[in-house]
Amino acid sequence: MGDLEKPEFIPVLVAPLYQGNIGSIARLARNFGMTRMAMIDPPELQDEAIAYSMHGKDILLSSKVYGSLAEASMDLDFLVGTSGISDSGEKCYQRNPVTLDEMIRWSRTISGKVGLVFGREDRGLLREEIKLCDMMVTVTASPDYPILNLSHSAGIIFYELWAALNSPIRRNSPTISVREKNALLQHYERLMEISGVPEHKRPIARTNFRRMVSRAAPSKREFNSLMGTFSRAMDYKRKRKEE
Amino acid sequence: MGDLEKPEFIPVLVAPLYQGNIGSIARLARNFGMTRMAMIDPPELQDEAIAYSMHGKDILLSSKVYGSLAEASMDLDFLVGTSGISDSGEKCYQRNPVTLDEMIRWSRTISGKVGLVFGREDRGLLREEIKLCDMMVTVTASPDYPILNLSHSAGIIFYELWAALNSPIRRNSPTISVREKNALLQHYERLMEISGVPEHKRPIARTNFRRMVSRAAPSKREFNSLMGTFSRAMDYKRKRKEE
Repeated sequence: MGDLEKPEFIPVLVAPLYQGNIGSIARLARNFGMTRMAMIDPPELQDEAIAYSMHGKDILLSSKVYGSLAEASMDLDFLVGTSGISDSGEKCYQRNPVTLDEMIRWSRTISGKVGLVFGREDRGLLREEIKLCDMMVTVTASPDYPILNLSHSAGIIFYELWAALNSPIRRNSPTISVREKNALLQHYERLMEISGVPEHKRPIARTNFRRMVSRAAPSKREFNSLMGTFSRAMDYKRKRKEE
Repeated sequence: MGDLEKPEFIPVLVAPLYQGNIGSIARLARNFGMTRMAMIDPPELQDEAIAYSMHGKDILLSSKVYGSLAEASMDLDFLVGTSGISDSGEKCYQRNPVTLDEMIRWSRTISGKVGLVFGREDRGLLREEIKLCDMMVTVTASPDYPILNLSHSAGIIFYELWAALNSPIRRNSPTISVREKNALLQHYERLMEISGVPEHKRPIARTNFRRMVSRAAPSKREFNSLMGTFSRAMDYKRKRKEE
């Protein structure tokens, strides 16, 4: 049974230096549906971290503190290390990072507690810590300047995981029904007729318009507004009255 | 041939409040391959913003300052507004946001200068500013607490655009240029006038039409076909009036 459950992600901050990053990551954790975090050897929490955490304050204040990543790993099923420095080359076999896409694909196949391990702002993760990780992931960025700030890197990873595992993304405004779409296409057809678009040109024009409307997926308001303009262009009301 | 070029993205910060966010966004811009940014009515830059900007310092210090979004829009081909508050409901026609995925799909079909417009940390974008936008995008997050910090929201959007436009998938048919898009909008405007759409209804209808066209990203053929129908509809109306 357990194997079919979604994994739980838990940010694990290893000796973070900046209060702003600590607070921001707690906020981001809450933004993306996590409920707890852990820290290894953190500085004392100050007001700044709490201010940055906003509605992630509870996550921040209840975060579990460990003395080492090895100790934290006892409570977790997987450790995914993050690496800002994408060292390549055979020597860095322990890093050898996967892309975010690859990590996400993997995350869909597992369950259990996954620690998302973020290193120190200045020195990243140490060699022994990297060895503890099941996987290293890196957020690709411009080769010109790929070094992301810690909390921004965390935000991108959290968002991607959240979006992948909560996919059926809903639009928040209702789009038109099939019937309305057909009404719009018919209206356009009538407009072409009345305006004298030559008959041989209409089939292509019809297809073009249908494709555009399909891609645009209009809202009800956009639909009404376009119908209104077309009706007026056709003198639809006046014609109806005359009949 | 400019039509086949990748779009250029330019962050546009509208009256940002916090130095940390301003600096972070300049850094993120550099991280994700952008070369400039713009600000509307910003506070005076302080050391904090410069410290946060890191290697994005040049982008920060050379950012162009405007008095209003309307003024900035003169230098840009598209405006994509970002909205933290995902108001739903038909009343908020101007927001009616697309998802990040939808915006990215769209961005692959266009070229030109795209302003990524970020509102104030406290009040977001004003109604008049939203109206200027071709599209509103929202970063979906946990319904429990979807409000992201400004620079983290920017980071996610920049990363997604960067990843999408630097991946090898190419689009298959050339879309209309910015000039053609504007010609189409003007044609629609004229059609409304001639057809007697009441003046007070036109601003909304105009926004609705622009949004639809932007999302649909018409091909040249679709553009020609729609222009043809509108031209003929206008001729028809003119004749009716003369009668």
